[in-house]
Amino acid sequence: MCIFKDLKMNHQKKRVLVAGTFDLVHAGHIYLINEAAKLGEVFVVVATDKNRELFSGKRPIIPQEQRLEIISNLKHVKDARLGRSDNNTLKTVEEINPDIILLGPDQKYSIEILKKGLAEKGLNHIEIRRLEKYYDKFELHSSSLIKQKIIENSKENNS
Amino acid sequence: MCIFKDLKMNHQKKRVLVAGTFDLVHAGHIYLINEAAKLGEVFVVVATDKNRELFSGKRPIIPQEQRLEIISNLKHVKDARLGRSDNNTLKTVEEINPDIILLGPDQKYSIEILKKGLAEKGLNHIEIRRLEKYYDKFELHSSSLIKQKIIENSKENNS
Repeated sequence: MCIFKDLKMNHQKKRVLVAGTFDLVHAGHIYLINEAAKLGEVFVVVATDKNRELFSGKRPIIPQEQRLEIISNLKHVKDARLGRSDNNTLKTVEEINPDIILLGPDQKYSIEILKKGLAEKGLNHIEIRRLEKYYDKFELHSSSLIKQKIIENSKENNS
Repeated sequence: MCIFKDLKMNHQKKRVLVAGTFDLVHAGHIYLINEAAKLGEVFVVVATDKNRELFSGKRPIIPQEQRLEIISNLKHVKDARLGRSDNNTLKTVEEINPDIILLGPDQKYSIEILKKGLAEKGLNHIEIRRLEKYYDKFELHSSSLIKQKIIENSKENNS
């Protein structure tokens, strides 16, 4: 065992991975990233348009490069990159090599399945946490609520 | 004349004021703020809901506190605050005391009228610049275009 290496490791900041679509950036996204920053340096994976289409059947409103541009410019983001456009999402996790993956309260991944997938890739050392608290300090705390308000306002203006 | 004071002043970063509604934050907003950061420390004034209603007849989609939350969390923003809810917008300029006011390419204020207003308050030293280049690197480079796409998508889904 190398004590000096361990001592050095203790002084290094942890790498925290956060992933999401971030379609219409709102205060809930900011909260997730800022909570991640309390754990270490934040690395964000922004879902590609194609990947979102694969999983949910539709593309986000804002194209991937624009979503990436905003996330990259947030105060507590150390680095942001686009995810992959295939099913091999764990490859990106492997590249970033985080100490912690922080899931948002509304991210549907099962921690158990994710852990199993990571173990198969020899990434057992990655800790998975979920932000339990749903951020509802503000009225429009999700992209869906924002879209809904825009659509309702447009109907009111046309009626 | 105090030479030492002047020397000190030269080493201080300039204070750059940027103002806007920032209703649905997009890459154009990021561009304006990052260009301002090239000139000095960026202080952002986020328009209040009431003020927007006074000027344009309608409130923004995103309430003022949420808009402020996102702008405050952008990398190159030194400080962000809400503007006033009356017509005395120059009072906020006086409080921030910037060296430069940077206008966005689509901000309709006349530089001449703004200069006159500042002069009346004894704020002749503030330089006013306008970002000439309209940011159109990305498809959805304005809040209106984003709203339009959301409304069109919703119509397609309902048809």
